[in-house]
Amino acid sequence: MTRVTIIGTGLLGASVALGLKASKKLPGLEIVGADRNRDHLNIAKRSGAIDIVTPDPAEAVRGAAMVVIAVPVLGIEDVMREIAATVEEGAVITDTGSTKAEVMRWARAALPDTVSFVGGHPMAGTTESGPTTASAELFKGAQWVVVPSVSASDGAVQAVSGMATALGASARFMDAEEHDAYVAAISHLPLAAATALFRVARDSEAWPELSVLAAGGFRDTTRVAGTHPDMAHDIAVTNRTQLVHWIERYREALRELQQQIADVEGEEELYRLLATTSIEHGAFMAGKVGRVEVTAKGIELPESPMSDFIFGAYFSDKIREINERAEDRLSKREQDRKLRRDR
Amino acid sequence: MTRVTIIGTGLLGASVALGLKASKKLPGLEIVGADRNRDHLNIAKRSGAIDIVTPDPAEAVRGAAMVVIAVPVLGIEDVMREIAATVEEGAVITDTGSTKAEVMRWARAALPDTVSFVGGHPMAGTTESGPTTASAELFKGAQWVVVPSVSASDGAVQAVSGMATALGASARFMDAEEHDAYVAAISHLPLAAATALFRVARDSEAWPELSVLAAGGFRDTTRVAGTHPDMAHDIAVTNRTQLVHWIERYREALRELQQQIADVEGEEELYRLLATTSIEHGAFMAGKVGRVEVTAKGIELPESPMSDFIFGAYFSDKIREINERAEDRLSKREQDRKLRRDR
Repeated sequence: MTRVTIIGTGLLGASVALGLKASKKLPGLEIVGADRNRDHLNIAKRSGAIDIVTPDPAEAVRGAAMVVIAVPVLGIEDVMREIAATVEEGAVITDTGSTKAEVMRWARAALPDTVSFVGGHPMAGTTESGPTTASAELFKGAQWVVVPSVSASDGAVQAVSGMATALGASARFMDAEEHDAYVAAISHLPLAAATALFRVARDSEAWPELSVLAAGGFRDTTRVAGTHPDMAHDIAVTNRTQLVHWIERYREALRELQQQIADVEGEEELYRLLATTSIEHGAFMAGKVGRVEVTAKGIELPESPMSDFIFGAYFSDKIREINERAEDRLSKREQDRKLRRDR
Repeated sequence: MTRVTIIGTGLLGASVALGLKASKKLPGLEIVGADRNRDHLNIAKRSGAIDIVTPDPAEAVRGAAMVVIAVPVLGIEDVMREIAATVEEGAVITDTGSTKAEVMRWARAALPDTVSFVGGHPMAGTTESGPTTASAELFKGAQWVVVPSVSASDGAVQAVSGMATALGASARFMDAEEHDAYVAAISHLPLAAATALFRVARDSEAWPELSVLAAGGFRDTTRVAGTHPDMAHDIAVTNRTQLVHWIERYREALRELQQQIADVEGEEELYRLLATTSIEHGAFMAGKVGRVEVTAKGIELPESPMSDFIFGAYFSDKIREINERAEDRLSKREQDRKLRRDR
């Protein structure tokens, strides 16, 4: 029998439990769930995610080979303190928190030397919360960041990356500071951007009209503003410096875009910027990750388009089309301007 | 026989054609399609959207009772000039452009007095373009802004709002300046916000890592950065003043949020702001439009929760839950701080 304890049976915790059961990788798997929220516990039990329920983390970790702490970030330190005295020698402890530097510090301070802590962050989730939306499929195809503590055993690191793999995710190793800087840019900044965007419209006198007219673009761009406030708040206060830095960079990028839009003489440059963005975004959404040879300064054929067959062809076609259109449209618009000036 | 001419057979034009046919509201409907893009014309013909194809707008409008101009905004003026001499007396002309003030000016200058121009803007669409993604269902449930010119006949206004209704949309009348101000906030600003957000990440040295880690939040928030550059560019240059104004307001909102995140003493206020946003956003996504009695300054029970049964209950529950949690978490965190100071 292998006992795994999940502390926090919300969306992430219950999904880990369901996924581990569905994977059938652990023979005789028994999952203990602990949560202060009795409703969450009961739902997780009824759904078959967990086998044994207890509200008390200290009790829940007895006999567990692995403990997954899946509570909002600011709750993690408390859980560590609560389980420190009862956790089994040699147990592997991991978490699912959205930031890692503070979590690693808490683990060093609160957990005994006899256990191995390996931080984790599954890059998956929805703006939904609670176990009713949990799914064994939640992590399929996702990245799962794994941050070993300096004292973690090799076996513990393998156990956590093995869990990520069993859940259908890809384990990626990095250190806590690296992780926090990256997620500030691609997870926490979008949250801040969506929040501010929703507030601008919502706080406008015209909101009654705006909310009626708002269509897919506004809904998509503000979607993460619906994130549960516990999660959003804990992210902001545990990754404050990085997030403030990235909001600054974002405000600067907006200022540049604003100036380009305001510049009547800069329409061609604006067009090329929008075209570059559209192409690069299309490639990203189609699964192309890493750098592509299209610069923000202008659209040029890649130096070595054959380095990537599919996207090479994709880019060649797109770039040819965009360049043709840019020339047609912009020379036409320039002629119209001259005509108007000459009249 | 009723002849309708669609000029521009991309996503919007082909969807209007398919929708009109599917509605079966016009007996003996015959749709003529005109487009410089031969591929688009052929695809629209093969899909059954249009019956007769011609590359020449001047020819296409002969005998048409209604003409729908569905080209990118900056192409609309040219089309108006091209069809001015051949359009039928008494014909109704409309468009699907994303901005309206310039379009109304072009119509006054270019079209003959013998026709009625009624501007239109269906608040629907995707970041896809071209007729292959067209659908008779595209406008179902959408708002269709209708902007009558001063000289338009009542019959013409009814014809255009009737078309919107036949396509499953709701017609909403407003003037061009009002429309352009509203869409700057809820359509064009999200486009600018998404574009700048994608650029910040894409232009970062860390993009190879960021692009691998980016999950649903980044994808949703940047989705409209994939808008076709023709459309994005024409929106920016024909609604320049309004858009620049709204980017300014957005930058200001980001600066405020940034300050709140940076303020170590302001965690409670930040929590309440995030909670308010999450609740209000949830209500908006659930279809609640117009004002709700939750202020950005704090979360309070609505003055008259019974004024709206469903959302009244929704808000009462959410607000009670959030207030309980806010008190629990924040007083706990305050105690922790004191403990640390006292140590």
